[in-house]
Amino acid sequence: MKLIDGKKISSDKRAEIKEKVAKIKQQTGKIPGLATILVGGDPASRVYIQSKIKACEHAGIKSFHHDLDENSSQEAIIALIKKLSENSEIDGILLQLPLPQNKDAQECLNAISPLKDVDGLHPFNVGLLNLLKSWNEIIEKNILVSCTPLGIVHILCKSGITIDGKTAVVIGRSNLVGKPLSMLLLANNATVIMAHSRTKNLKEICKSADIVVTAVGKSRFVNKDFIKTGAAVIDVGINRTPEGLCGDVDFDAVKDMDIEITPVPGGVGPVTITMLLENTLKAFSNRRKIVA
Amino acid sequence: MKLIDGKKISSDKRAEIKEKVAKIKQQTGKIPGLATILVGGDPASRVYIQSKIKACEHAGIKSFHHDLDENSSQEAIIALIKKLSENSEIDGILLQLPLPQNKDAQECLNAISPLKDVDGLHPFNVGLLNLLKSWNEIIEKNILVSCTPLGIVHILCKSGITIDGKTAVVIGRSNLVGKPLSMLLLANNATVIMAHSRTKNLKEICKSADIVVTAVGKSRFVNKDFIKTGAAVIDVGINRTPEGLCGDVDFDAVKDMDIEITPVPGGVGPVTITMLLENTLKAFSNRRKIVA
Repeated sequence: MKLIDGKKISSDKRAEIKEKVAKIKQQTGKIPGLATILVGGDPASRVYIQSKIKACEHAGIKSFHHDLDENSSQEAIIALIKKLSENSEIDGILLQLPLPQNKDAQECLNAISPLKDVDGLHPFNVGLLNLLKSWNEIIEKNILVSCTPLGIVHILCKSGITIDGKTAVVIGRSNLVGKPLSMLLLANNATVIMAHSRTKNLKEICKSADIVVTAVGKSRFVNKDFIKTGAAVIDVGINRTPEGLCGDVDFDAVKDMDIEITPVPGGVGPVTITMLLENTLKAFSNRRKIVA
Repeated sequence: MKLIDGKKISSDKRAEIKEKVAKIKQQTGKIPGLATILVGGDPASRVYIQSKIKACEHAGIKSFHHDLDENSSQEAIIALIKKLSENSEIDGILLQLPLPQNKDAQECLNAISPLKDVDGLHPFNVGLLNLLKSWNEIIEKNILVSCTPLGIVHILCKSGITIDGKTAVVIGRSNLVGKPLSMLLLANNATVIMAHSRTKNLKEICKSADIVVTAVGKSRFVNKDFIKTGAAVIDVGINRTPEGLCGDVDFDAVKDMDIEITPVPGGVGPVTITMLLENTLKAFSNRRKIVA
């Protein structure tokens, strides 16, 4: 087993981003800004949002955090988002998900200006991702794509794992990971299998794949029977167990296999936050092209 | 082999639509309207557009056709689209593709009001399709989805072919067919394999599937080796050969197999045009909900 070092891939990229931010400041006198919104006090969400704010500050990106009360109305959330969409100091807006119950998250996301949609969840940006025909086009047009899928493609590239012509299985069909990742892998010329809870023969299907991405949220869900020799395994799961954080893969069970794999923690997680910084820079540059 | 009768499925649905249009006229005094645009004189495109206009007229939908010269500038196409987007008599706008060379079709499609985008190719509608989590949501929210994929799901349903839990391969990843169809099948709980020209082991992959959809554009591309016993085969190809129109499937080669299959012509084609009428009614109703 070869471990893919997400921390190293992330810190290399963050160093690049920090340099870019410094250059932007020097050349334009402007500082890219990211607004974050946390509704309610879920402890896990607070930890995530704090690491995002810290990463911004470390990279020189200005962060604007907004705490909203658990009982805030959907209208209040949308009103704040609209205000931030109009604030010219702010390039990106991140609404931390999940929202407390009885709120329609997509309705709130739809209120984010597509130009500031650093999580790539506005229908317009989702549509652009789906309509583009190649990875190059995605890069050239600076499309805002959901951070976790973007991070996964970055990990595969930096690890020298070819996507073109490979078979990739994505387990889980969420709007945040499974679906946009499928589109990114397709744009990179993989044959993509979208698998989920209704999939039959999941083991066999995964066993046929060169790349297995699991975003299920069940610890020890993926074991030896799912993975073929030589495969690359990307573990997006973050599961809290009595033994600590772990991914969807039964790590001990696969540790003697000839595979490459991202650990949890230290795999996809840090790279995801890095992509949020990258998207904030993209948004900064897209807005300047269009607005200024 | 059991033939799936696309003509019958289509004419049943068109009769329903005709009734709905009559009821709309009676209740509101309004007539749903579809604008069609043909740029240049490509004979095949002209045949398609004429069948669309004829289908509209037969269903009682008012059609507004616009012929543009082969050499019309992209700006002229967009200007016409914007004018039609503002015309309250028009519920749907269809830009016949492909456009003559040197035009950016997507730029033109982006100018269509998302509310009138009966081909489901505006990024906003593509995004809505991708973000929705189930077929029911697609129906309830009256999302405008590309006509061919919509027709294929209609054909499967009317033929009593279960999608839920099945493995479906879609060969071809176009924006008009392959990608939106993959999303529709996923929303119907299929395990979806997106295959294309860079796919290795295509035969084996197809042979594992319960549903095979081919949208490749090569006559006799899919033969016996691609199809397992009991599979449903949907042939989207329309290829002109010296022997006449044919699909992607080598029909003679599979005719003794125990499969269900759509013929070409008389399979997907007529149902696609029917879905254009259906989308025009959806657009009529969506616009009234929002505008009036």
